[in-house]
Amino acid sequence: MNSTPTPHHDTPAARNASAALLDALHQRFGEQLSTASAVREQHGRDEGSIQAPPPDAVVFAQSRQDVADAVRLAHAHDTPVIAYGAGSSLEGHLLAVQGGISIDVSRMNQIVSIDAEDLTVTVQPGITRKQLNEAIKHTGLFFPIDPGADASIGGMAATRASGTNAVRYGTLRENVLALEVVLANGEIIRTGTRAKKSSAGYDLTRLFVGSEGTLGIFTEVTLKLYPLPEAVSAAICSFPGIEQAVRTVISTIQLGVPIARVELLDGPTVALVNQHSKLTLREEPMLLMEFHGSPSSVQEQAQTVQEIAQEYGGQAFEWAHTPEERTRLWTARHNAYFAGVQSRPGCRVITTDACVPISRLADCLLASVQEAQESGMRYFLVGHVGDGNFHFGYLIDPNDPEERARGEALNHKLVARALSMDGTCTGEHGIGIHKMGFLGEETGAGAVAVMRSIKQALDPKNILNPGKIFPWQA
Amino acid sequence: MNSTPTPHHDTPAARNASAALLDALHQRFGEQLSTASAVREQHGRDEGSIQAPPPDAVVFAQSRQDVADAVRLAHAHDTPVIAYGAGSSLEGHLLAVQGGISIDVSRMNQIVSIDAEDLTVTVQPGITRKQLNEAIKHTGLFFPIDPGADASIGGMAATRASGTNAVRYGTLRENVLALEVVLANGEIIRTGTRAKKSSAGYDLTRLFVGSEGTLGIFTEVTLKLYPLPEAVSAAICSFPGIEQAVRTVISTIQLGVPIARVELLDGPTVALVNQHSKLTLREEPMLLMEFHGSPSSVQEQAQTVQEIAQEYGGQAFEWAHTPEERTRLWTARHNAYFAGVQSRPGCRVITTDACVPISRLADCLLASVQEAQESGMRYFLVGHVGDGNFHFGYLIDPNDPEERARGEALNHKLVARALSMDGTCTGEHGIGIHKMGFLGEETGAGAVAVMRSIKQALDPKNILNPGKIFPWQA
Repeated sequence: MNSTPTPHHDTPAARNASAALLDALHQRFGEQLSTASAVREQHGRDEGSIQAPPPDAVVFAQSRQDVADAVRLAHAHDTPVIAYGAGSSLEGHLLAVQGGISIDVSRMNQIVSIDAEDLTVTVQPGITRKQLNEAIKHTGLFFPIDPGADASIGGMAATRASGTNAVRYGTLRENVLALEVVLANGEIIRTGTRAKKSSAGYDLTRLFVGSEGTLGIFTEVTLKLYPLPEAVSAAICSFPGIEQAVRTVISTIQLGVPIARVELLDGPTVALVNQHSKLTLREEPMLLMEFHGSPSSVQEQAQTVQEIAQEYGGQAFEWAHTPEERTRLWTARHNAYFAGVQSRPGCRVITTDACVPISRLADCLLASVQEAQESGMRYFLVGHVGDGNFHFGYLIDPNDPEERARGEALNHKLVARALSMDGTCTGEHGIGIHKMGFLGEETGAGAVAVMRSIKQALDPKNILNPGKIFPWQA
Repeated sequence: MNSTPTPHHDTPAARNASAALLDALHQRFGEQLSTASAVREQHGRDEGSIQAPPPDAVVFAQSRQDVADAVRLAHAHDTPVIAYGAGSSLEGHLLAVQGGISIDVSRMNQIVSIDAEDLTVTVQPGITRKQLNEAIKHTGLFFPIDPGADASIGGMAATRASGTNAVRYGTLRENVLALEVVLANGEIIRTGTRAKKSSAGYDLTRLFVGSEGTLGIFTEVTLKLYPLPEAVSAAICSFPGIEQAVRTVISTIQLGVPIARVELLDGPTVALVNQHSKLTLREEPMLLMEFHGSPSSVQEQAQTVQEIAQEYGGQAFEWAHTPEERTRLWTARHNAYFAGVQSRPGCRVITTDACVPISRLADCLLASVQEAQESGMRYFLVGHVGDGNFHFGYLIDPNDPEERARGEALNHKLVARALSMDGTCTGEHGIGIHKMGFLGEETGAGAVAVMRSIKQALDPKNILNPGKIFPWQA
């Protein structure tokens, strides 16, 4: 596929790996190093809509020392390094825009220690959230954060990911207790302990969480776990319009109901999901909800939300009673992205990720729906609406620059609207390449300058995932 | 009072305010500037046990521009600035160890905006938590974080404070959405929006929260609020020993009971509290608990905890049924510190603040109690035990260097024990001056070096609260 870079995709001079670096890497890593074209291609793209030339080589790391040595060698040769987990990011995080080495940590997918009695686990970064939950299910605990994709924990930490469940359990910001990090020069540090809270110096854990591989590469992640809820109930509810669904959510949050998941799909997206997942859901705006707690607490929460929904013209709840039914519904929800993609063969997706204060959600969403409809753009619409976060997926022909420009223009207008409502351009996907143009609009140049100072202090050679989040020079 | 500095209290060269700076400040601030000895003395101490000469002058700031101008002038003259809120810190944060200007923000105590429908509020930094809760009580919302002292919100954010209620509602780490910050050169930035979550670049909010005035001075703080719980119940329960009380807490947390507060006092501390607050509590190890939620959820939580307590030999719960009774109990708990201080006239308190993973709490606490008892040191003992956090207050004669050394040695042994259990030296008070020696032991030299790089990048003249957290030079 050929494509026109977005306006935000600056392409500074490449700093490709030299023959000397490749030799040194080969000596150190042997068959753990690949320069095969297919391997490089696979590591040079993500699920987003931007393309760039692939990395020059891929190191398949199997230990912290592998990561540290790969970074140390790249550092000695002034060559970029890009951490690679599951490849599921959406904003161009993995693209080797300046050339360099991809460090694939997917083989580092072991549990380091489970401390069930403390509700914590320490994992290697390449473990995916499904692998993690499978590995700990005997403990009666789970890791709730669920961005849809079976992302790696390292990647989720690097992008400050969240998704469904975040409305109750928080994001990776709240759920990472500590990190082991390889710094730009190959040095290894640990950013925290397993204590639940700490005031010991700067919060390096939170600084590295969401730093998108630009300040260090994670080699261990210590996470909070939660007791599996005694009772879980899932329900769907259809509404006459998006507004009524959203108003139901707003009231639910304002009342402090500890709902575990509350997801919006608009009518046409439900239709796409029906087709993709062979379901027969009513093709109207829909909330997909889940309640966690003791049996009586779950009942109480559901009762409250049903009453609110009824006020807004919602249908009676349809319950997913068995774990299998629940899994089927949530799988369908998670596949909404692919249902959208497959509805237009050959398309790529420009995904929006605005997040606004809950009281502004209806205004922001409805105006953006109207704008998208008026543009004639094909799209799907889903949302983690309990957090004020939603995603349009504009389905563009990657070979049609006009269509890409129209999609980006819609995205930009939507972001401007969210910012005017004291929201953010990205609730959970990160800035990557794709949203670099929005960061300054959101935070102001002064805050970007502070980020840049930190980056330049910790990575003076700019080898860690360069060309992401903000430009190296103001 | 004269005192011997602790081993961790390094005293680099003073950089006192020059006559030229004082002139410039006087021109700009007029009567908002004070060089009166009593004012300077008051701003040169906190509730901790370390002393230093007072600041050279105090600026009473009334606006962000006042703070920015004071910092800008001090910056131009290479002179330290120290933010001052309520003066309640415990670790020497406010001490002008290198001379300089105290910037008192206590007059900046206004609500900037209440966004009740979003469960957020933006305040000036000098407002105290009690003032805040008074000002918002008409909204049906509250700010739960309660460190005991009526601290300023700015100071709480600067030390990543928590206290009772954190076991359910988190700390300032989780509850600050955004900050307005004056940087070292007087520039003003904003670190976030009111969106509940964001992946927009480095998490500057979390970097500044807990930075103890060393990276910037806060001029606005945006906080999360919570609906006042429908039902609140408080109870006390006495136990035959500390271990049984702690085991009750560990089981409660491991079961995922969303208890709102669970505080430990040992028997002698209950006796001090009885005397100070004219109560007749049973003088045995005691848990003081609070449950928040719907009436049925509160009942369910209390039932579960009562059953656990009974297994460990706890007495029947005694309930505080009315708000007045609850307030009386919590006031007594909060005055435990002063009850301790007043039990030994003229003493100062060395306060410990270790926090360990919950499964290690009993081991850590019991070994530390034994050590304290063997030392013959007078102390009180309280704990936010649901978080694994507890405080010994060693009551020392500030004029007796041997006693101070003995207290510090006990503290050091306790910290070493907590670190060996993957805990932290400070759960909520911060490093300040007093715990500088522990930071490297906890995080390793590499992590301290990262902190130092950040400090040097953002405050190259080292004017922002210098001599705190870690030394400027490695």
